[in-house]
Amino acid sequence: MALIVQKYGGTSVGSPERIMNVARKVMATKQAGNDVIVVVSAMSGETNRLIELSKQIDPNPDLREYDVLVATGEQVTIALLSMALNKLGCPARSYTGAQVRILTDSTYSKARILDIDEANVRADLQAGRVVVVAGFQGSDEQGNITTLGRGGSDTTGVALAAALKADECQIYTDVDGVYTTDPRVVPNARRLDRITFEEMLEMASLGSKVLQIRSVEFAGKYSVKLRVLSSFEEGPGTLITYEEQNMEQPLISGIAFNRDEAKITMLGVPDQPGVAYKILGPVGDANIEIDMIIQNVGADATTDFTFTVHRNDHQKALKILDKVAKELGARELNGDANIVKVSLVGVGMRSHAGVASTMFKTLAREGINIRMISTSEIKISVVVDEKYLELAVRALHDAFGLDKAPAA
Amino acid sequence: MALIVQKYGGTSVGSPERIMNVARKVMATKQAGNDVIVVVSAMSGETNRLIELSKQIDPNPDLREYDVLVATGEQVTIALLSMALNKLGCPARSYTGAQVRILTDSTYSKARILDIDEANVRADLQAGRVVVVAGFQGSDEQGNITTLGRGGSDTTGVALAAALKADECQIYTDVDGVYTTDPRVVPNARRLDRITFEEMLEMASLGSKVLQIRSVEFAGKYSVKLRVLSSFEEGPGTLITYEEQNMEQPLISGIAFNRDEAKITMLGVPDQPGVAYKILGPVGDANIEIDMIIQNVGADATTDFTFTVHRNDHQKALKILDKVAKELGARELNGDANIVKVSLVGVGMRSHAGVASTMFKTLAREGINIRMISTSEIKISVVVDEKYLELAVRALHDAFGLDKAPAA
Repeated sequence: MALIVQKYGGTSVGSPERIMNVARKVMATKQAGNDVIVVVSAMSGETNRLIELSKQIDPNPDLREYDVLVATGEQVTIALLSMALNKLGCPARSYTGAQVRILTDSTYSKARILDIDEANVRADLQAGRVVVVAGFQGSDEQGNITTLGRGGSDTTGVALAAALKADECQIYTDVDGVYTTDPRVVPNARRLDRITFEEMLEMASLGSKVLQIRSVEFAGKYSVKLRVLSSFEEGPGTLITYEEQNMEQPLISGIAFNRDEAKITMLGVPDQPGVAYKILGPVGDANIEIDMIIQNVGADATTDFTFTVHRNDHQKALKILDKVAKELGARELNGDANIVKVSLVGVGMRSHAGVASTMFKTLAREGINIRMISTSEIKISVVVDEKYLELAVRALHDAFGLDKAPAA
Repeated sequence: MALIVQKYGGTSVGSPERIMNVARKVMATKQAGNDVIVVVSAMSGETNRLIELSKQIDPNPDLREYDVLVATGEQVTIALLSMALNKLGCPARSYTGAQVRILTDSTYSKARILDIDEANVRADLQAGRVVVVAGFQGSDEQGNITTLGRGGSDTTGVALAAALKADECQIYTDVDGVYTTDPRVVPNARRLDRITFEEMLEMASLGSKVLQIRSVEFAGKYSVKLRVLSSFEEGPGTLITYEEQNMEQPLISGIAFNRDEAKITMLGVPDQPGVAYKILGPVGDANIEIDMIIQNVGADATTDFTFTVHRNDHQKALKILDKVAKELGARELNGDANIVKVSLVGVGMRSHAGVASTMFKTLAREGINIRMISTSEIKISVVVDEKYLELAVRALHDAFGLDKAPAA
């Protein structure tokens, strides 16, 4: 008998009918002989409705009270899902975060889980009940209600799976797994049966929004097996595993891309010690996050400096750097918001040479100019003009044979 | 410095604007030098919205989960009101029933309060904070969320006032006090400055819906001073007091009436021991509540039996009694739903004769036939044809001079 934690997001529990549907899925898992803990989000739209109410009182509300308010969203769902399970004849009991208890620090609206008391949940499982837990919330040492911030329901699922040593943590979403790339761009993109945690982290950080990156990190830290499945279709989904030494790894697992970045280049900066700090310091001080950074030696003891920021911050960053460029005596400052980052991700890269050269050759053959390159152990990212996004992704998907399942 | 408990119902907190308005009233009480505990209901419409959701899952839901669901209604209000107070610069902190903690038994959906832990609330008051408590809810010994049933927010207010020995429990509603009778029937009905608990209990039980009868009983039991005020207008409201021996009591305080009853009469029942039980037993077994009961000796060793039930139960009761009447050999069974009960209430009746005769004389002068009479120590009720309701109430209001304030 296995212990399974299942997490259902807001869309999956968005109406009484959908909640009945989730109840049937949970009951099927229970009837297959498993113990089941279910973690649920607020019904879709509910959290926004509550936030809208609070904005009408105070655009910057007291955060302790904000958490008391939004925590009601998940509480409604646990009650309705437990009612649905009991109605189907499947004994179930709901728990708020405070009832479990999921102990957090007191950082209202983005609290971190410190400990989980498993006694109550364990007793209910032993009594044959399904345990339904409110995601996204807990309580601090003093009993104040806290929330984990957006996406926190995934983290609740993983944390419960870790605390109770569950065999698997299943994250139900509106997609049926992790794909080699976005199927809207590459129609023959393929669902992966498994992907490693490291790859999943890279995919998530590069803009593939299947799982919250924080919950993936959390799962990795506590060695929790994660599986991504669809709430609306049957299927095995994608299992997120630890890298197994002897497993035959495909060269690369997927292609991620990100349209949210913009590029800034400062050319002909006199090359002195501390120049990187002088350029990036003021940008960081303005709370602008920097992603890729490249510095090249230019002509005549000058250096060229290029980096990317979120598109929303592009104009703000350029304004700050206009002043910096003058102070440093830089030759030129320019920005480009019409770029995308395309990344190959795969643990197989570690032991195989030639991935980069195949990538560059493929892009060259399509006439796509590479503007920036950055690499990590299991990832190669390039920045190209936005108009080439689809062409680049399709060509690379094809070049690495991602549409074909790897040989077993 | 006084400790004031204020309770605001669903209409008073029905929108963010109204919640801001309540926050201003609370802050004014605090700034006048009082410690303040505020008890709030769910925003009007919210509880019904939640019940509607639960009905879509299960018309007879698991009651533990039902309580988890509906308790979110008040939790939303405490968060929003605390936000509003903090925004106005009045430090405030919210508490769910479980956080206080308000310990109840485990009778889900109509739990009873067993104990209130005053430590947390007291500490916040001492720190200069307004304490905002969710009405209508608590938690049982095991930490399960419970609700007190409809109208329970008044009870929460009174229970907190009793536990913390508050100087006054103020119930804010959409009327500005208790009136001598319904102002919609008698335009010159007068707001009472004070009324005794006993009178208030009679008024409530007779259909004057200003306060929940359970909260009035509770206040009387623990000697909590209650005051009824309007959320929307300024004014002293009505203070509900204990009878003071030397206080000059008016003869009667108010006139209550009830249109929700229907009359059933069984004539010519052979008079045997146990006949009352044979008639009323089957009605009680069908969960039909009986209000007034009158039994007269009829002709020829028979008896006539008349009683009233709620109008909704009238047809059901008649159907049951049709069978009973045949078994008992009664001469006739008839029902009349077009009746009303009109009641004079006043502790002054105890020490003054002549109230009944003034009442009967007044009704006779207006040509109103009395169908039933029943009396208690501080109340006289008569049943008359429904069409005479307004005439009867106005004539009695006038006859007893209720539009004039009693001499001080």
